[in-house]
Formats: sequence, structure tokens, C-alpha cells
Amino acid sequence: MEQRLSMVSLGVENVAESTAFYDRLGWKKSETASNDAITFIQLGGIMLGLYGRGPLAEDIGIEDSARTDFSGITLAHNTRSKEQVDDVLSLVVNAGAKLLKPGQDVFWGGYSGYFADPDGHIWEVAWNPFLEISENGAIILPD
Amino acid sequence: MEQRLSMVSLGVENVAESTAFYDRLGWKKSETASNDAITFIQLGGIMLGLYGRGPLAEDIGIEDSARTDFSGITLAHNTRSKEQVDDVLSLVVNAGAKLLKPGQDVFWGGYSGYFADPDGHIWEVAWNPFLEISENGAIILPD
Repeated sequence: MEQRLSMVSLGVENVAESTAFYDRLGWKKSETASNDAITFIQLGGIMLGLYGRGPLAEDIGIEDSARTDFSGITLAHNTRSKEQVDDVLSLVVNAGAKLLKPGQDVFWGGYSGYFADPDGHIWEVAWNPFLEISENGAIILPD
Repeated sequence: MEQRLSMVSLGVENVAESTAFYDRLGWKKSETASNDAITFIQLGGIMLGLYGRGPLAEDIGIEDSARTDFSGITLAHNTRSKEQVDDVLSLVVNAGAKLLKPGQDVFWGGYSGYFADPDGHIWEVAWNPFLEISENGAIILPD
């Protein structure tokens, strides 16, 4: 099994509204690949999918559990500077996100904050002084 | 806000056991970046993090909700051929995953199945005849 991730799918209440939220962050969908039922957004070499929460559960063949405050998964967007963390948090709140934790120095030596998108999916915005982000956005860990 | 994802963090009951599960899939952690509290695994240009579910909620500053059968998020691993879907599903089940949906032809023209990792995080294993996977594993959507 090759060591890679192809897609993250977020179950959402309303695909158009969720797409509009990410568009307000400056994230453009693939017009060709997307349709009314699903939005695809290129994120580096992987895809972000925005799909109805009910249809996503149905596709798996399980019941759609009630939404909880904490899904047990977080997504992170790392910034290239410490200052950008607050800039991004400010941008996403203006776009309709809920701020969960303002940017602050954290125990591992970086600076980070958290927000929830309109469907409650939790994103960290983090600056990590120990990791380099390549020009194209990739993060390469040491072995 | 640059259009990219840096990390997916999975909240797990036991970091060592979850790390061992992904290791059985052939996914090697970064020895340098990982420690007893967190495992980092390189997946293309992003990182997969395995971190305690409680500490993850604590980092966000929210209560750890009870785990549900469906978190509302799925991760996907796309294969390079239709046959590989069944091979991967067989591998992960032998490694301790729970099969949620056997590989099958699906309405959008591909072939896919789902499994849950030992903490219930749901992965799709999919072959999509309309998407090309580059040599390094990246998937590039049309505009």
C-alpha cells in the first residue's frame, strides 16, 4: 500500500454554502470536476471534497451519527510566518468560521489557533518554526 | 490564505497501537519528528499525525465528545488500478482494520470500498478511472 493520501471528504449540510465558505478563503473549486452534489478543491497533491453528510454516510453504508462538537479529526493549515496565523484566523472568521482558540504560543514551540468551519469541521492554523514549507506548499518531514 | 492542507491529525486511544497499525500497512513514521506522544507520517506533501484523542481536544480547548460511528469526515487512498482496491482492503483487514464496505462498482463510475482503522477513522479505498495519479502519488484535478 503506497504511503499516501488522495482525498479528505468533509460531510456538510449544504454543499453550495460550504463551497461558498471555502471560496471566501480564496480556495477555488475545480469547475470541471465539481457538480451540484460534490465540490472538489485542489490542495497540493490531494483533493478536498465537500459532500452531503447524509450521502457520505450512505456511501459508506452506515447510519449518519448525530454531529458532535469534536469529531476526533483535525485538519491543519501551516503558515510561513508567525504573523500569518493571526491574519488567516481573522480572514476565516470574517468568512463565517467560528474561532475556537485565538492564535497563541504553544507548548511545542510554535504559534497556533483553531477554527471550526460552518459544519463544525475543525482546522488548526499553525506556524511551526521547525518545519520548512516548500515553495509549492509541501511539507517534508525528516526521516 | 494559500490553497493547501498541511496535516491531518487523527485522535486515537493509544498512539503506539495506532502507529503499529499504520506500520503494518507499510507506512513508516518519521523517527526524527515523532515521539511517544505523537506520530508523524509523511503522506505526499502533507503529514498524518496520530495523537491522543483527549490531548487533541484539550489542545483545541473543547470537551472530548463521545466517539460516534460516523465522524462526518472520510479519508481516501486512491489506487492505480481496479484490482488494487481489493488488494489494499485485504491488506488492511489483515492488519486489524474493520471492513465497512467491500470493494464494488460505484455509481460514479469507479470501484471502491471502505474500512475503519482501530479508532474508527474511516478510509475509502478507491479506483477512479477519470483521475490520473502522478508517479509521486499526487492527484491533479482539472481547473
